[in-house]
Parts: sequence; structure tokens; C-alpha cells
Amino acid sequence: MSAPSLLLEVGNTQIETVETLLQVGRYLVIFLAARALAELMVRLGLPTILGELVAGVLIGVTGLHLILPPAVHAELNQGMLALIGNCAGVSPEAVATIYDESFPSLEATAKLGLYALLFLTGLESELDELMAVGRQATTVALTGVVLPFALGTAGLVLLFHVPLFPAVFAGASMTATSIGITASVFGELGFLRTREGQTVIGAAVLDDIFGIVILAVVVALAADGVLSAGPILQLVLAAAVFVGVALFLSRKAAPAFDWVLDRLRAPGEVVVAGFVVLGLCCFVAEAIGLEAALGAFAAGLILSASKHTAAIQQSVKPLVALFATVFFVLIGSSLDLSVMNPLNPDNRDGLVVALFLLVVAIAGKVAAGWSYLSKEKTNRLVVGLGMMPRGEVGLIFLGLGSQAGILSAPLEAAILLMVIGTTFLAPLLLRLALSGVAAPVDGTAEQAA
Amino acid sequence: MSAPSLLLEVGNTQIETVETLLQVGRYLVIFLAARALAELMVRLGLPTILGELVAGVLIGVTGLHLILPPAVHAELNQGMLALIGNCAGVSPEAVATIYDESFPSLEATAKLGLYALLFLTGLESELDELMAVGRQATTVALTGVVLPFALGTAGLVLLFHVPLFPAVFAGASMTATSIGITASVFGELGFLRTREGQTVIGAAVLDDIFGIVILAVVVALAADGVLSAGPILQLVLAAAVFVGVALFLSRKAAPAFDWVLDRLRAPGEVVVAGFVVLGLCCFVAEAIGLEAALGAFAAGLILSASKHTAAIQQSVKPLVALFATVFFVLIGSSLDLSVMNPLNPDNRDGLVVALFLLVVAIAGKVAAGWSYLSKEKTNRLVVGLGMMPRGEVGLIFLGLGSQAGILSAPLEAAILLMVIGTTFLAPLLLRLALSGVAAPVDGTAEQAA
Repeated sequence: MSAPSLLLEVGNTQIETVETLLQVGRYLVIFLAARALAELMVRLGLPTILGELVAGVLIGVTGLHLILPPAVHAELNQGMLALIGNCAGVSPEAVATIYDESFPSLEATAKLGLYALLFLTGLESELDELMAVGRQATTVALTGVVLPFALGTAGLVLLFHVPLFPAVFAGASMTATSIGITASVFGELGFLRTREGQTVIGAAVLDDIFGIVILAVVVALAADGVLSAGPILQLVLAAAVFVGVALFLSRKAAPAFDWVLDRLRAPGEVVVAGFVVLGLCCFVAEAIGLEAALGAFAAGLILSASKHTAAIQQSVKPLVALFATVFFVLIGSSLDLSVMNPLNPDNRDGLVVALFLLVVAIAGKVAAGWSYLSKEKTNRLVVGLGMMPRGEVGLIFLGLGSQAGILSAPLEAAILLMVIGTTFLAPLLLRLALSGVAAPVDGTAEQAA
Repeated sequence: MSAPSLLLEVGNTQIETVETLLQVGRYLVIFLAARALAELMVRLGLPTILGELVAGVLIGVTGLHLILPPAVHAELNQGMLALIGNCAGVSPEAVATIYDESFPSLEATAKLGLYALLFLTGLESELDELMAVGRQATTVALTGVVLPFALGTAGLVLLFHVPLFPAVFAGASMTATSIGITASVFGELGFLRTREGQTVIGAAVLDDIFGIVILAVVVALAADGVLSAGPILQLVLAAAVFVGVALFLSRKAAPAFDWVLDRLRAPGEVVVAGFVVLGLCCFVAEAIGLEAALGAFAAGLILSASKHTAAIQQSVKPLVALFATVFFVLIGSSLDLSVMNPLNPDNRDGLVVALFLLVVAIAGKVAAGWSYLSKEKTNRLVVGLGMMPRGEVGLIFLGLGSQAGILSAPLEAAILLMVIGTTFLAPLLLRLALSGVAAPVDGTAEQAA
């Protein structure tokens, strides 16, 4: 059953055929499932990202075993293996071997999607608008990072005796706020341009910066497996310098980028030039011991001041639509939700941990609403609820932590439930909280700024 | 020096870091080199695709050894291995191992680029315009396919004693016409909307269809390594039926696609829906024994009649700009042009073959100009020269033939020189041929139709 002996019986062209069928087939399954569930979520008034996650769960290790990262060591769907084996004239066992061997290229595509998504998030950060609500947004963001992180980590260690390192990671995964989901719900309800809306968006951007810095530190520390003050300080410093340089460059380097871009004449120049900056930032971040993901976000920040920002966003969006979907579906597919089955008594402890994380995740962010510094009448509950959805950022944490092999299966599932729960509840609770309030007219936009 | 023993000394996180650095770094090198040379080509009035090819040659096995497909078995650039080894704290030998192991994901991206490019080519095929110049375009296309194919294959077998199978493949690679390059040169000179221009574009589209069918047959036959009438007929039939069904569906299925698309609400629906059709066509083509590339082209044809065609094109273009570039650079990088060094007497025979292919490639297409059926005064030389550039389509042949392991190194290099030569000479000769002729005014466009 070893790989080489199996594949020696198969011709080169047959291997090519199986590879192509598997790669095309996996994309098809991913896109069809993700799209079907995303459409369902849109119709339920829920974020589409929930659909992509659930799609992954349905076709992954918890469900149909169609999309199965080799690391999870489960049996692939026999029907799929037989179908593709028949087309190419090879045995199902050989198909399974080629499946595992060709899976890394799907994971590489998912990573490309992650970088493209963070690049887009950085590009969409309106630094100027952020400065306008700066003081309030900063206190809200800080409280919303510190409370869930401290309560989550401490609770996991003290109440549930989780080892320090996974506990820190789980705590870190609760710091994030999903700009995309918050912005879309506020926009839909007509509250995006209110002072509350602007503050939440500003705080979400800051959360992303804090969160990605924390992530970079946590993942780098995972390499050593110990928590000691020296390396932490060094990494925090490196991350702070890196983000500081990126913010500085977003003021200073964008004109140079525009100057170069204006002189390029071969077609496709906008997307390629954008990707070169993206690649450079990812490379530097990874080379100095941080995460390439931080580099992708920084690249977006740097180019957010370019006069070609809109064109770059336009050309990155199709990549995000395709490859970030692959990223989210792969996360869902690798999670074994059967460890959360409440009918199995062994799972009760894990379920309690999941419930604890969810409560801390909600309470920590809602409390952040009350840290809002303002003498004007403010709907603090709306601010807090707006900070609640973890969405894609929480998932990025989960994906990287699970890649780094830090988390136990029940803790992974608990984090996923926390992310799903907050992302699912935020739009519902926000609609409830705002149901008594009349949607503001357009004029409040100027008033807010 | 074996792979597992080397990597056992290295931590998981270090492997991740090296992988990320290599993947990001390879994209950076590819984009920077391709872009620099594409910009040079634009300024010289030459097609940008030549720049991408030459970039590949410069950074590949002929040049700097930065981008090196594992199949070519050459030493990687020591400076690059040392740089990345230093960043991650691993030995250069371990970096080389991870380089080879992670290369398939770059090749998968290149294949994605190839499919996206053929999808776009199909999308841009104006079936109605094609019908208007149909009769003339068909005779020109047929002559331009049959002459180079027959002369090339026969000459290689009879004069140079090349085995039948590689000879057929080389002959097939000479049938193509690059729509993109021809259209851009005609457009630049203001001749796109003349009768000659329209006919050449129409013939180029037909050439693509003939060429991709021939390709599908040749590659499928490569699996068996024998040329016998039965399987050839069967494959030609399958390919003809496949293209016929695609042409039929482009009339009938596009409305159904539009109906579905109009009902989708989750963002990114256009690009994802387009990719689902692309994936389905690729899967079916590959599953019935043809090439997935033919499926990609067919998917484009099917959707070319959709009312969302422009939006799909818009969202596919960034993917082509990024990943088709990877495809062309990888082709250039895998070719060892030192086998064409004229200073080495051993290479003389290969050079004579290259010269022969180039002459047949030019003469065959120029002769096609005289097969133009028209009583009106026609610039037959312009039609023939317009059919000359092989461009990306010739390279797709070369790439797939080289993947299938059909071609010897000198024959590969000879085909590359033929593709480069025709692509390089066509714009220059066209400008010469048109220099005496006044550029037509806009009115000729209507006259042409």
C-alpha cells in the first residue's frame, strides 16, 4: 500500500489525468457547496462566510469526506475515488494516493486567498476616517482586545486546566472583529454612517492590527513552545516596527508606487504591481520571523493611499471570491465536529469549554461598548454588539493555529463554535437592538464625521 | 542527502517558513522578471508575451537557476538557497529539498493560468463576426493549418529522421495562430476593422479550435505512443462532438446561465459562476479522454453569448495577468537554450532543424493568404503575415508536449525558437507590408462587415 509501489503500476499520463480530475473536481465541489450555502445565508440575512464554513463542514471530515486534508487521516469518500479511478483507468487506492500528494497545491491556493483577503482588508482601511474617530475607536478597540484575551486565556487555564500555550492562542483568537461582517450589517440597516457605526469600523480596523500582531507573536512563539518574556518583547517590537513602517509608507510610498505604475505600459500592470508589493511585504514579514499574513495586511495599508487603490481592489476581488472561499471551506472541512456531539458523554467537557468561550467572546466585546468615551448620548449596546462578530479574522487565527499544530481537536472545535456563534448572533442581536430605533437619514453621515 | 533524513533535522515551523518564503519569493522573481521584460518589449513595439518567455529563459535553467522545475535536474542557485536558509535557520540542502517538494503548487497555479487564458480566449470569440467572414476565414484557416502541419511533419521525418510521434507534435505546434498578438498589431496600425483584419481574426479563432482539437488528439495519443487509425478517429470524433456541443450550448445554454446568475445574491457571484462552468467543462473534457485545456476554451465559447460576458472577462483578466504569466515564464524557465549554442558543433543539426521549422512556419501561413477566396482587391500578403505569430497558442502546445515527455531537448528548443521567431517577426513584417498603405479611416469597418 506504500505510495511509490502503487504508482509504479500506473502510467505517467494516467497520473496526470487523475491529478487534473482531482484538482478540477475539488474546486468544483468547493465552489458549488460554498455558493449554495452562501446563497442560503444571504436569504436568511446572515453573513455569507457562515455558508462557506458550513459548506466545508458538510463536505469535509465531519460530513461527506470529499475534501479531506491529508493531515486529518480519515478515509476518503469511496464513491469519489471509484468515479475518478474509472475515468482514468486506475485503482481507487492509487487515486487516494494522488489525492493526498496533490492536496498541498489546494492548500497553497487557500493561502493565496488568505493573503489576497488581508491585502484587500488593508486596502479598504480608510486611515483618514479612522483618525477622525481615533480616540473613541482606540479605547473601544483596546478594551475589546484586552477583555476577551485576558478573560479567555485566564479562564481556560484556571477553570479548565488547558495548557498555557493553547490557552493563549484561544484567547488571541477572541480578540478579532470582522470588519466585513460588521460593515455589511450596519450598511444594510442604514447605520454605517452614524457616529456609532464609524467608531465600530474604526475599532475593527485597529482590532485587525492588534489581532494580526498578536497572531504573529503567538505563531512565532509556537515554534519554541515556551512563553518567555525576551522573545515576546522582541517579536512585539518587530511587529510594532513593521506596522509602524507600513503606516509611514502608506503616507510616503504610495506616490512612488503611483509614479512607477503610471510609467508601466504592458497590460495587467495594476494587478501585477499590486502583487509585487504584496509579495515583498509577505516575504519581509516572514523573513524577520513574523507571519506573511501580517505582511499581506501591511501591503494593503501601504497601497490604501495610492490613487490606483480602487483599480487594485477591483482586480483583487475576483481572487478573493475564488481563493478566500477555498481558505474558509478548507477550515470547515478539516474540523471534526463530531467531538462536539452532545449525545456522547465524553464530549460534555468540550461543550462546556465552547460555551465558556462563546460567553466570554460576547461579554468581552459588549463590555467594550461601555468603554466608549463620549459626552454625547450614545447607543453603547449597538457599539458593543457591532464589535462582536469574529468572522473571517477569527477563522484566520483558527486556520493558522491548527496548521501550527497547537490546538487539540476539542479546543479547535470550541473556537470554531465561538466564531460561528458570534458571527451568527451579531446580525440577529444588532437588528433587535436597532429595531426600536429609526434608521437615521443621510444627514447624520456628515454629523458623524 | 535523501529527502526525509534531511528534513527530520528541521522543525515543522521552519519547514513552513521555508515553504512560504520560497513560494512568495518565486512569485516575486517571476513577476519582476516578466514585468521588466514585458515593458521592454512594449517599448520595442513587440508582443509582451515574448518578454515573459525571455524572462523565463533568463531566470531558468538557461540563466540564473532561480526558477527550476525539478524535472530538469539542475543545480539551484546557491545564493538563493543560502539567503532563504539563513532566514529560516536551515541548511541550503534542506531548502533545495523543500524547493522541489513545493514546486508542484507553482505548476498547479500555472495550469490555472492556462485554463483562465483559454477561457478568456473563448469568451472573446465573437461567433457572429466569425460567421460574417466565415467562408473566407475558413479557407484561410484550413490552409494555414494543413500546410504547416503537413510540411513540418513530413520534413522532420523525411529530411531529419525525427521519429514519427515527436514530428507530428512539432507539426501540430505550427498550426496555431495567436489571436491576441495579431489583433493587437492590427489594432495598433488601425487595420483591425478592415476586411483583411476581420478575416485574419476569424481564421485565428478557427485555428484555435482546430489547433486545440489537434492538441487534444496528439496528447491523448502520446499516452499510448503509437499512431493508429482507430483511436485517432475516435478522439477526433470526441473532440468534434465536444466542440459542436459547446457551439450549440453557446446559443442555447447562455440564457440558462444568465437566469441562474440573475438569481444569485451572494457577492462574487459572476466570477464563481463562471469558474463553475469552466470547471465542469474541464472535468468533462478530461474525463472523456481529451485535454482539460479544450474544456476551458469550450467553457469560454459557451459563455461568450451570456449577457454577463463583459463582467466575466473583467473578473478573469486579473487571473490571466497573474497566472498565465506564471505559465509562460515556467515554459521559458524549463527550456535549456544552451543546446542551441552555435559555437558547439554538436548543436549544428538542432539549429538546422530550428531554421527549417521557422521557414515552414512562415511560408505555410503566408501561403494561406493566397487561399483567400475573394473577387475584390485584397492584400494577401497582409492576411498571410497576420496569420504568422504562434504566440501563446504555440507555447501551450510546447508546454503540454514537454510535460508529456514527448519531445527531445533540441526539438523543444527548436519549437521555442520557431514560436519566438514568428511572434517576433510578424509585427515587424506587418509594419513593413503596411508602411506603403494609408491606414484606413473608421468607415472601412462597416464596409468590412
